[in-house]
Order: sequence, then structure tokens, then C-alpha cells
Amino acid sequence: MAFTLVIHGGAGNITPAIMDAQLEAEYTTGLKAALAAGASVLRAGGNAVDAITASVSVLEDNPLFNAGRGAVFTKKGLNEMDAAIMDGATLAAGAVAGVRNIKNPVKLAREVMLHSGHVFLSNEGAAEFALKRGVDMAPDDYFFDRSRYEQWVEIRDTDFTQLDHKGDNLKGGVVPNIGHKFGTVGAVACDMHGNVAAATSTGGMTNKQYGRIGDSPVIGAGTYANNKTCAVSCTGHGEFFLRAVVAYDISCLMEYKGCTLHEACNIVVKDKLVKMEGEGGLIAVNALGDYEFCFNSAGMYRGMCASDGRELVAFYG
Amino acid sequence: MAFTLVIHGGAGNITPAIMDAQLEAEYTTGLKAALAAGASVLRAGGNAVDAITASVSVLEDNPLFNAGRGAVFTKKGLNEMDAAIMDGATLAAGAVAGVRNIKNPVKLAREVMLHSGHVFLSNEGAAEFALKRGVDMAPDDYFFDRSRYEQWVEIRDTDFTQLDHKGDNLKGGVVPNIGHKFGTVGAVACDMHGNVAAATSTGGMTNKQYGRIGDSPVIGAGTYANNKTCAVSCTGHGEFFLRAVVAYDISCLMEYKGCTLHEACNIVVKDKLVKMEGEGGLIAVNALGDYEFCFNSAGMYRGMCASDGRELVAFYG
Repeated sequence: MAFTLVIHGGAGNITPAIMDAQLEAEYTTGLKAALAAGASVLRAGGNAVDAITASVSVLEDNPLFNAGRGAVFTKKGLNEMDAAIMDGATLAAGAVAGVRNIKNPVKLAREVMLHSGHVFLSNEGAAEFALKRGVDMAPDDYFFDRSRYEQWVEIRDTDFTQLDHKGDNLKGGVVPNIGHKFGTVGAVACDMHGNVAAATSTGGMTNKQYGRIGDSPVIGAGTYANNKTCAVSCTGHGEFFLRAVVAYDISCLMEYKGCTLHEACNIVVKDKLVKMEGEGGLIAVNALGDYEFCFNSAGMYRGMCASDGRELVAFYG
Repeated sequence: MAFTLVIHGGAGNITPAIMDAQLEAEYTTGLKAALAAGASVLRAGGNAVDAITASVSVLEDNPLFNAGRGAVFTKKGLNEMDAAIMDGATLAAGAVAGVRNIKNPVKLAREVMLHSGHVFLSNEGAAEFALKRGVDMAPDDYFFDRSRYEQWVEIRDTDFTQLDHKGDNLKGGVVPNIGHKFGTVGAVACDMHGNVAAATSTGGMTNKQYGRIGDSPVIGAGTYANNKTCAVSCTGHGEFFLRAVVAYDISCLMEYKGCTLHEACNIVVKDKLVKMEGEGGLIAVNALGDYEFCFNSAGMYRGMCASDGRELVAFYG
């Protein structure tokens, strides 16, 4: 039996101009490590949920990516994270929003799915549940990253929020068409049993205010999985992805309109989102192991591997 | 030109056995007042967003309903509320989760939609935004309701959560098949300009823990509106509505499969949700002014009125 694993580390204005050979090597190493962690689960006959949890955890542990350890700073100088996971075999789902000091938010989302009786927990309440379940915590300094901190210090006294690069300030949450990156990580997989699953994790926007929740932890918007159709993890300007219910829209286009995975992803990302000016991208897989990278931004950190030996890591459009 | 306005005050085990003549009269009065508030906006040529904001605010102000003033108590003895609103003409949306001391959470959701640059704000951050926008606040005792408090006192030292009636205890978030009601309010409307909108507001579950977020504030799950298809507001066991992305599913069945509003509502509520054991219901309207009440529970507090003089208030199945 075959498996397919697909990951992303955020979409946006990712071009050769903002990269150099060393940075390319670091991102390549980071993405390959995440693929290896998930693939080893799948190769051993493990399920898609465990594989994507492993892959996303590796991305969360890598300060290069805005999720987990590398989460950006909010207006108050905190690291607040969101994550979600969904099991396409059962439609079980778990999500957390606004959590702090959780080493791997994707693992907490998985605990929510399996052990809370709920789907979506937030803030201190989610942290309380994490403590009760013995989920790994980490002190503030674990999440401290010098470059993220400097990004924040530069703009903390302003009303600007920032995505994931210098020079991409935005006011009032409206993204102008300048260089920026939507820092989020995600994974989707089809395991050897034909089950699919999706997970997404993010640290949000630098200097974000107001307990803002983006699309990442919202089932149907940033994350969705259903064996009948597909598993999807998104990265982009969350407000547009929420309004467009992106991940479930792809599933519905397949289920109700008979679109292929490729057609459905293209309709949503390259037509509907473009018309709304909703920048970003997604990864998707179906229960046959077909996969898609799809984005309307300049680039997306991404990778895939499959049981037949294919492996791919790429950044640019 | 014609208008249609539809409201609900929660679905669940609402039967003549739990009601008496006085209670029936009180619910009738409450629902009619909410219809009147929205209808007066629509009759004057006002838009659907303003009409549903008016109707939901009246329901929030009525302690009979678990939303706004009548919100139930959480595990910590607080009243935490969630709300969402969506404009079918523009696909603009706003939502808040876990807010306290906000007199009308639906009005705060509307402010988020119009003035935050975001879609979804939570907890203290949402309250901070409310203060900045001058949204009406109310002290804790405004939300104090003797019967809600007694419901909570009975179970506060247990791990039980409770929906909206005595005798409907549930453990670990799993609802057993006994009497209960999903306390939520909502409104959908089609205005004289052919624009639709949807809003939902809730106080959640008595003794709820962990900052639990249900379907009400989640765009696509509990609330969705799109002029091309329909406007939907849900009430039910939120975890199932989140996993089934209920409101957007109805829209997709109409847009991609060509279902009528009636067919789409029935497929989702009476087939898909029943198979998942997801109890509850919804109200919906399309841009032609057709409307649906649809529920798989014993009853749903509901009402509708239209420009042709039709008016209806009902409770039971």
C-alpha cells in the first residue's frame, strides 16, 4: 500500500531576492526533517493523524517557522499560538486558539480531539486542559527568538501589525501588496490504509491585538479532512480564508460538483481568493494519494514525499 | 419589494411537557418582540444586517434566552458569550468568542466586521476592542439570573456540564439522549434589496470549562450568509456542527449541487447530522425570501414574519 505526505511552512512573498544560499539550505533541512518524521510513521503502517502530528511538531520546534517555538510576538510581547487537527476517517477534530507556553500546539489540538469531548478550546481554558492532560509546556524563553523579538520591538509602539518579515507592515489588519509571508505550518497525509488527515499550526501576526483568531484553528476554514474528498491545510491572510471557508469549500467542490482535487484547489485559490484579494495557499491530498500544492502568492515553503520514493522540497512559484 | 425575517431562540427537547401556559406566553412575547424589532428596520427599507442585529439584540436582552443577559454560568461562575454576524452581500463577517460584560455580543460582532480589519476576536482582546469602539458594557449583576445561577450552583463542584435545563447533565461534553435545550439565539433575513444576512449569539453551556468555543461564532459552522445561496443561523450540539461545517454545507449543496434551500437544509439536518448524532436545528433564508425552519430535536423556539403580513411563532416539532 502507498502513502503520501505533504507539508508547508507558510506562503507569501517568498522569492530568491529575500533568500540566500545559507537560508535556502536551512529551510531545506527543516522541511526535510519534517517530512522524515511523518514518513517514518507512515512507512511503519502508522496512521495519517500520527504522521501529520509528527511532521508539524518538527516544524513547530524549528525557529525558522512562525509556529510553536518560532511564534512571533503579540502586541503585549507574548507568544500566542493556534492549531487544529482533523481526522478524515472519523471527522473527529480538535483545535486550540490563543495558547501560550505549549511546546507543540498541534499535540494539544490532538488531545482536544481525542480527550476533551469538545472540538475548540481557547486561551487559559485550553492551557488548563493541557496541564490536566500532561501536554509538554515550555517557559517563555523557549519561545524567545532574537529576530522575532526585534521585529516586534520595531513596531510595538505603533498600531501596525506585521506578518513574518521585515518591511511588511500593515495597518488595521489590511495587507497592502508588499513583501510579506504568512507564517504558518501544516501537513496533510494519506496513509497506507487510505485515511487522510490535516493539521495546521501558527503563531499569527507580529504585534497582533485583540485576541485575533485567524483561519488556522478554524475547522472548515484553515483545516479540514474527510476521506470522501480530501485533507487540506491552508496558509494565508486568515480573514479572507475564514470568510471563504476555504478548506471545506475544496471538499464541497469535489463532493457536490465532481471536481478533481486539482480543479477544486485551483478554483478556490486562483479564482475565488484572488477575486477577494485573499493572498495565500494550501496543501491538499485525497484518499488516492493525489496531492496538490496551490498558492496565489509568490512562493510557499513546501515539501512532499511518497512511498514510491518521490521527495520534493521547494520555495518559489 | 418584499422582505423576510426568521429568528430562533434555541432547539432541543422543547415539548409541551416542559412548558405551561405562562411560559408559552412569555416565549411568544419574547419572540414577537424580536421579530418586531427586525421587521421595523426592514419595513423602512433598512438592510438585512441591521435588521438581524436588532432582532438578536432583543433576544439577548431577554433572560429567557441563553445569550446576552440570559447567558449561563461557566465552571468559574462567569458569563462568557460568543456571537457572529455575516453579510451575504459582501461576505464580510465578524465574530467574538469568550467575551464578558458585553451587553449585546451581536453588536460587538458587527463592530468587528465593520471596524477591526479582522473577522474573529476572542476573550480579553475582544473586550479591549469593545472598549475602544464604545460598545455598551454591563456589570456582572446585569447578567445575573437566579435560575441560571441555581442551575450552576447545583453542578459547579462536579465535572458535569449542562445545556439549558435542569436534568440534562452531561459528562465530558457528550450529550446523552435526555431532555435538554441548546440555548442560542439567531436571526436571518432577506431585505427589500435582495440582500441576506445571518447572526447567532450564545451563552454556551452551564459549567462549561476550558474556554470552549462552540459553532455559534464560527463562520461556516454556526453562521453563514451569501446572497448567491442563503443565510443560515444554527443552534445545537456545537461540536457536531463544527465538524460538519453545517451552515456552509447548506450553501455548498445549493451552489454546487443545485439543491433548493429546503432540500439542502433537510439533507444536512435530517440526514447528515442525524447520522453523526448531532442534535439541533437551524433557520435559513435565501435571496428570494424563501425560508426554512429545520431541526432534528423535539422542538425549536422560532418565529418568522414577512412583508406580506405573514407572522408565525412556534415551539414544538
